[in-house]
Amino acid sequence: MAGNSFGQLFKLTTFGESHGKALGGIIDGCPAGIVLDLDKIQEELNRRKPGQSAIVTQRKEPDTVEIYSGIFEGKTTGTPIGFAIHNTNQKSKDYSHIKDSYRPSHADYVYDQKYGFRDYRGGGRSSARETASRVVAGAIAKQFLSEIKINAFVSQVGGMKLDKPYKELDFSKIESNAVRCPDTEMAQKMEDYIKSIKKEGDTIGGVITCVIQNVPIGLGEPVFDKLHARLGEAMLSINAVKGFEYGSGFAGVTMKGSEHNDAFNTDGTTKTNRSGGVQGGISNGMDIYFNVAFKPVATVLQSYETINKEGEKVTTQGKGRHDPCVVPRAVPIVEAMAALVLADYSLLARTNKI
Amino acid sequence: MAGNSFGQLFKLTTFGESHGKALGGIIDGCPAGIVLDLDKIQEELNRRKPGQSAIVTQRKEPDTVEIYSGIFEGKTTGTPIGFAIHNTNQKSKDYSHIKDSYRPSHADYVYDQKYGFRDYRGGGRSSARETASRVVAGAIAKQFLSEIKINAFVSQVGGMKLDKPYKELDFSKIESNAVRCPDTEMAQKMEDYIKSIKKEGDTIGGVITCVIQNVPIGLGEPVFDKLHARLGEAMLSINAVKGFEYGSGFAGVTMKGSEHNDAFNTDGTTKTNRSGGVQGGISNGMDIYFNVAFKPVATVLQSYETINKEGEKVTTQGKGRHDPCVVPRAVPIVEAMAALVLADYSLLARTNKI
Amino acid sequence: MAGNSFGQLFKLTTFGESHGKALGGIIDGCPAGIVLDLDKIQEELNRRKPGQSAIVTQRKEPDTVEIYSGIFEGKTTGTPIGFAIHNTNQKSKDYSHIKDSYRPSHADYVYDQKYGFRDYRGGGRSSARETASRVVAGAIAKQFLSEIKINAFVSQVGGMKLDKPYKELDFSKIESNAVRCPDTEMAQKMEDYIKSIKKEGDTIGGVITCVIQNVPIGLGEPVFDKLHARLGEAMLSINAVKGFEYGSGFAGVTMKGSEHNDAFNTDGTTKTNRSGGVQGGISNGMDIYFNVAFKPVATVLQSYETINKEGEKVTTQGKGRHDPCVVPRAVPIVEAMAALVLADYSLLARTNKI
Amino acid sequence: MAGNSFGQLFKLTTFGESHGKALGGIIDGCPAGIVLDLDKIQEELNRRKPGQSAIVTQRKEPDTVEIYSGIFEGKTTGTPIGFAIHNTNQKSKDYSHIKDSYRPSHADYVYDQKYGFRDYRGGGRSSARETASRVVAGAIAKQFLSEIKINAFVSQVGGMKLDKPYKELDFSKIESNAVRCPDTEMAQKMEDYIKSIKKEGDTIGGVITCVIQNVPIGLGEPVFDKLHARLGEAMLSINAVKGFEYGSGFAGVTMKGSEHNDAFNTDGTTKTNRSGGVQGGISNGMDIYFNVAFKPVATVLQSYETINKEGEKVTTQGKGRHDPCVVPRAVPIVEAMAALVLADYSLLARTNKI
Repeated sequence: MAGNSFGQLFKLTTFGESHGKALGGIIDGCPAGIVLDLDKIQEELNRRKPGQSAIVTQRKEPDTVEIYSGIFEGKTTGTPIGFAIHNTNQKSKDYSHIKDSYRPSHADYVYDQKYGFRDYRGGGRSSARETASRVVAGAIAKQFLSEIKINAFVSQVGGMKLDKPYKELDFSKIESNAVRCPDTEMAQKMEDYIKSIKKEGDTIGGVITCVIQNVPIGLGEPVFDKLHARLGEAMLSINAVKGFEYGSGFAGVTMKGSEHNDAFNTDGTTKTNRSGGVQGGISNGMDIYFNVAFKPVATVLQSYETINKEGEKVTTQGKGRHDPCVVPRAVPIVEAMAALVLADYSLLARTNKI
Repeated sequence: MAGNSFGQLFKLTTFGESHGKALGGIIDGCPAGIVLDLDKIQEELNRRKPGQSAIVTQRKEPDTVEIYSGIFEGKTTGTPIGFAIHNTNQKSKDYSHIKDSYRPSHADYVYDQKYGFRDYRGGGRSSARETASRVVAGAIAKQFLSEIKINAFVSQVGGMKLDKPYKELDFSKIESNAVRCPDTEMAQKMEDYIKSIKKEGDTIGGVITCVIQNVPIGLGEPVFDKLHARLGEAMLSINAVKGFEYGSGFAGVTMKGSEHNDAFNTDGTTKTNRSGGVQGGISNGMDIYFNVAFKPVATVLQSYETINKEGEKVTTQGKGRHDPCVVPRAVPIVEAMAALVLADYSLLARTNKI
Repeated sequence: MAGNSFGQLFKLTTFGESHGKALGGIIDGCPAGIVLDLDKIQEELNRRKPGQSAIVTQRKEPDTVEIYSGIFEGKTTGTPIGFAIHNTNQKSKDYSHIKDSYRPSHADYVYDQKYGFRDYRGGGRSSARETASRVVAGAIAKQFLSEIKINAFVSQVGGMKLDKPYKELDFSKIESNAVRCPDTEMAQKMEDYIKSIKKEGDTIGGVITCVIQNVPIGLGEPVFDKLHARLGEAMLSINAVKGFEYGSGFAGVTMKGSEHNDAFNTDGTTKTNRSGGVQGGISNGMDIYFNVAFKPVATVLQSYETINKEGEKVTTQGKGRHDPCVVPRAVPIVEAMAALVLADYSLLARTNKI
Repeated sequence: MAGNSFGQLFKLTTFGESHGKALGGIIDGCPAGIVLDLDKIQEELNRRKPGQSAIVTQRKEPDTVEIYSGIFEGKTTGTPIGFAIHNTNQKSKDYSHIKDSYRPSHADYVYDQKYGFRDYRGGGRSSARETASRVVAGAIAKQFLSEIKINAFVSQVGGMKLDKPYKELDFSKIESNAVRCPDTEMAQKMEDYIKSIKKEGDTIGGVITCVIQNVPIGLGEPVFDKLHARLGEAMLSINAVKGFEYGSGFAGVTMKGSEHNDAFNTDGTTKTNRSGGVQGGISNGMDIYFNVAFKPVATVLQSYETINKEGEKVTTQGKGRHDPCVVPRAVPIVEAMAALVLADYSLLARTNKI
């Protein structure tokens, strides 16, 4: 209810502030019998962690996950998987300048209004550091969903947009560059652009595209819990996300029905896939694909005017170690959230029929 | 879990197929003491109902709601509000042609795959007729939220896009035309366009914009249940929706942080509102606004090729009474879903502090 | 959340006041493909309905259920089953004497305190009439659980207690008498006793025992959602219930571990069954059995002193048509709630393993 | 869903096996602004921990709780409270004898059947060690509910039963003896009896009575989530519990309505309190009291026959450090679960009215 759980049957609950002792979570409902490769969990965390390249924040957080329960002799036991990532490199002093003032387009002001006060260090609970827990859970969900392939990648940074259809891309190239764009030429341009933005002390937005392949038919519930509705909620719950579209998305608006409809092949697949792999809220076996829009990071390393708790104007200077563009590090988070949705609906689909 | 409930504290559960005896729902958690104007509920239903203008389906469904419980002496009692809308004009024979074949870009095929069989009459549970129950519940939620103003309107039909910022629009004009676009000149063009599409036996997509004003600060939960994530899920759960964006949305991607950030006024309001009234998942008191993209209706009144249950090719002819463009009738549905989200989060916000 | 839903995967939500237009509910999550015998649903309702014998209330409520959705061509479709029972014989005037005063040991006072006012007619939502909806849902759950046998019966009325172990009883006799006690001799004594209590204008409590046979191993979750914990909650949610015990129950308290432990046979069954078919919250394949204690009905047809809304003493006279002893009509309710729990956990158990 | 969460608004989720690295939990929904005394949390844990007296298990577990999040500058922040208790003294070798065989009246067999295998060390997830996490959460709930007084105590051990009404007891004596019985004379007898049972290598059951005072009127929901139904579920979810009764309980069965009804005083209180502080599922402001029955601990330090995984008979010898009687250490667990229920319903009650 208070919003720190995601999923119903395969359920993640997370805890932790940016600069607290630890963050972590509990995965409840993970089926018994999954042979878990713990290294793969850490690998996913490493894709998200700071300091991995020149275009991301230079904070040094090892982000080592410790698993406390739910695994025995290498397999999940069906009991909850508790885990924690201990904070080791938190420089809380970096944030003393925001203790009493509100950073624009951050959650500082609303937290104070909602709760009466806030843990201001590093943004507290509103920090995207919380997503590390999602990546852990997503990495486990991926191993449960071993047949399903989930690939997210950066398809836009600022005005630079990858226009190729995803079918023409080589997903094996995603991890070959710092931006996580599978088109290496475009990746280079994006990287250069992010560096120039960083030099200005500014930030820039971007889009992540996610493609999910090999999804069984029948995942998703018909009315409120449509598969794409839950995917949308999952993506919109990631820090800095402003929009979600799947299949034909906003562009589908300008099409006529006769153009937009996906004609069937005799095996139940469709000739086109404007539906984006979901029909009436239920997976139809075609690829699921969607776009997620991220705004530019709010923390700019520039001087700006804002207000303090007393409502007085103050001038302050952005500092700390921040990402000039959030999308490269958000790629594993998008994949993790997609995996959590699919794991949850995979279990739920077991209950549809007698 | 099976997806027919929405909300946690103010919770709607719906039932009903397009051509069954009745559809309806239960609202659980509606606070006691709301003086309910029942006529306003029926008025909202009338905004959604078929046959209201020349550009919508000409089916005749009176859509009269009967309330069974939860109201006593004109006020809500705090107990569940059960209601039903009896079906009266269902022409099931219209659908016998789809009993054994699968309409493209409809849910026919996935229902059969998921459940083993389906109630094919009128699309059964996958029909947008289900949304009538949402409109009833939304109309009650609106009366609970009497301070908050929710206005949705059509901002795009096919390529025709209303480019004025919402602040320049007169919301009192929304109901003045069949399209529900507050710019009467644009409304006329849209209406003409929809008529021409209808004449072709075709359909067209559109966008609904929703503006929510007078929202108290502090609604929304910080992590998975961010206010905009729930709004997004709510909208994506409406039939035919393909995308959702709030505040700067997809356009925000191309902005720099220094341009995108909303500077504070000394009273805590902001000079700009690219955040769209939500910061870190929590309402900040500014207007909430978002766009919802609808694909073209899948039923075209043309001849088309598809497959039957046996996987054989069949040629069929779209018939029945359908909407050439879904957005005019979807406006009250968008408002209803927004109201349900806000009612739910308003109650939840009562529990944040000691 | 507001307490009108039961179950997670197989979920019942109910609505309706004693004297409103109708009561009913929605069953969400019922799997597709169950061939439903609708007559059996009505039969269960008839076991609960007033006027069925001389020892129950003489109100005349036909309690005919109308099913609105979720069933097509005789089978469940996997979509929600909406249903209603219309009220036809409500004599609201019978209750005008309680409009302004509070009946002792009824919910009148707490409803006014909690909600600010109440629908006082027939007890409104606090009336056991709500349980008719549970019986409908339970009857459907029973058909889903066709392998499992659920038999409840009256084992005590006042001080008259059936001391035979349930294995010595013939469950086919339960419906052979008005009390629903499978020992016909004891049944006659209980019936005579209830009649004498009724003559006094008084009421008496009782115990229902429920035996569930043929339960698969593995239903129930290990920690908070232990199978017996949910059964206990289910039973305690029935009007007038004051206690629940399963297996050895309160009597097990005085036993030593060496006496109480159930030794295994080589096939995994146990020689004794003090555990009551549940071990560590999970069914072990042995019979589940439990007792449910019901207090005497609070409405006595005698003169009594109480207070009115202003806190003044008033003398009033119990009237209306009430049960002298609630247990005979509560037998199908106990069975229904047991069936709902088992249906829910049966679905959940499908998700335990890869 | 998988049963490791309790509560809806004030929600505890736990993780951890008896012999894993750590156990712990997350409290989600705890309101912001509670000034927390961390020592009191540890004190509650100490009441539960092994080795505290001669009549409990002599295992040495410091059970020191580490809080990771959700508290800042001494106050709850409204964000989730994550915590862990690291295991330090686990002697897994003690359990190698049960790796391949099933202890009678333990969960070994059903875990293997349900999940395919189990973490057998110390009972794994089925160990009552899990309840340490409940005590942490309950200790925080108690501080939130600072006005409400919750006192549990041992009222029966084997056949030794404290027959005094709770009003004649001095709750300040509960902690004065190892049994946690407020009647010191009876406490001595119980203690002696437990010692004699222990000497036999046997175990014995008991009853805990819990009294909750100063409860505001209006907590509890009318139908499925009656306050006493949730209390019952909470208690039945504690290891070894076989029964629950509140107010007049099973004894109320033999009373007539005219005797059982609680007559009102003019201030809305009642002259008697057979209702046990709950009417129609809603607190009425009177004391809530209930009894919880615990079976004898299944582990007896005697030789016994059982079966192994292959279904072969084996003779084994109970060993390890176990409690001869569980109730003294279960007192803080009962209080904790009661506190969790009340905290949850206190928050929920904020949403009943406009």
